[in-house]
Amino acid sequence: MSEKHDTVTCAVLVIGDEILSGRTKDRNIGYIAEYLARVGVEMREARVVPDVEEEIVAALNALRARYDYVFTTGGIGPTHDDITADAVAKAFGVTIDEDPRAMAVMMQRYIPSDLTPARRRMARIPAGADLIDNPVSKAPGFRIGNVIVMAGVPSVMQAMLDHAVQGLRTGTVMLVETLEAGGLPEGRYGVALGEIAAARPDVGIGSYPSFANGKFRNSIVVRGKDAAVVAETKAAVEAMIERLSGDNKPL
Amino acid sequence: MSEKHDTVTCAVLVIGDEILSGRTKDRNIGYIAEYLARVGVEMREARVVPDVEEEIVAALNALRARYDYVFTTGGIGPTHDDITADAVAKAFGVTIDEDPRAMAVMMQRYIPSDLTPARRRMARIPAGADLIDNPVSKAPGFRIGNVIVMAGVPSVMQAMLDHAVQGLRTGTVMLVETLEAGGLPEGRYGVALGEIAAARPDVGIGSYPSFANGKFRNSIVVRGKDAAVVAETKAAVEAMIERLSGDNKPL
Repeated sequence: MSEKHDTVTCAVLVIGDEILSGRTKDRNIGYIAEYLARVGVEMREARVVPDVEEEIVAALNALRARYDYVFTTGGIGPTHDDITADAVAKAFGVTIDEDPRAMAVMMQRYIPSDLTPARRRMARIPAGADLIDNPVSKAPGFRIGNVIVMAGVPSVMQAMLDHAVQGLRTGTVMLVETLEAGGLPEGRYGVALGEIAAARPDVGIGSYPSFANGKFRNSIVVRGKDAAVVAETKAAVEAMIERLSGDNKPL
Repeated sequence: MSEKHDTVTCAVLVIGDEILSGRTKDRNIGYIAEYLARVGVEMREARVVPDVEEEIVAALNALRARYDYVFTTGGIGPTHDDITADAVAKAFGVTIDEDPRAMAVMMQRYIPSDLTPARRRMARIPAGADLIDNPVSKAPGFRIGNVIVMAGVPSVMQAMLDHAVQGLRTGTVMLVETLEAGGLPEGRYGVALGEIAAARPDVGIGSYPSFANGKFRNSIVVRGKDAAVVAETKAAVEAMIERLSGDNKPL
């Protein structure tokens, strides 16, 4: 990408045995990717790890050293398998205790006799973290350093992300153009598209087949930060599609 | 887990810019996880990486050293952004060339004049790999060492997985019992469930909230390989749910 454009990167760390067993299908990676792309934060990696402290710590330390931000989902509820907050504290080498700010938020939802020991676990926040609002069910997420810790339930995660994104540094938003190659097969345009891509190192070009009713259909996506370069690339791809679609050969 | 049970592990490596941009929502991780769990292969980690050779090589080498099997999805089509086969060859330190077996398979679908240079890219297979059938669109996947390389389009991946799974070593299938805690909140049963879990190191117990129509509902999942232990744990959790549901306290 051209140097006049800023790039801010992130990774997502999904924490939970239920994703790895297939019981729960992750819907957070795609949501976060799309949401952050719109504000100028580019997802570069995602990982799913089990509810095992050393796995969470190792993955978090690898990712937070490498990307501008890391977003975690899952493992901040009130049960024994919710170990994310403790793992994050360990990764950062800080203490973790019941946080008065988090307790104050929880008391908006629960009367004192309902603040069970399990629920009080959700007020355990690593030292030095800022809280992230949870308008759905109060128990907060938090941010420490470049790590944003959110719930795993999609509706709660999404509400937390709305709040967390306000404090982020953002880069130039990637411009995206999608062109439908329709029934023109990848095998017919692969070489020509590769030449278009090779000549334009400042844009990313992807070709994405989908398969339904016994047929492949293809989309070509052009992504870049410079509007003129993206527009010129789009025109080149359109011209290629038109030229090859006119061929007499069977598709 | 008890030593009389075999454990076979795997990881999934999803390859593709389109997943990290959010354009395409991954449906392969969950499918593979659930499918392999049923035959006795436990997914322990998943990663999503971009179409960048060194990223694919690094992730693949990390995962294949650590788990019994690695399943990759994506990046084996005919366009310039399909670089998985070359990256896998590099990770294994082997050569990659047009494979006569793969060409023979492709010729079942394409007449010679339609075997474009782009399509011939799909016949590039790392040295020493076995082919994996693709009944949907012919261009094969492959297996090299403990790495199984599959397409990214879900229907094609699923067909390849049906074939690939036949050659796998499998372990004891995990037994799974799901109990509905219904509207009983996690905050009410968290401590009791934690005690049940702590007393039974041979089973995994998870508590999973979902949120719809303004309400949380919870499921408790018991997972283990010994039928008697799973049954005893299930009974203990059921008794706990019944006891706590009978409390007079507001939920």
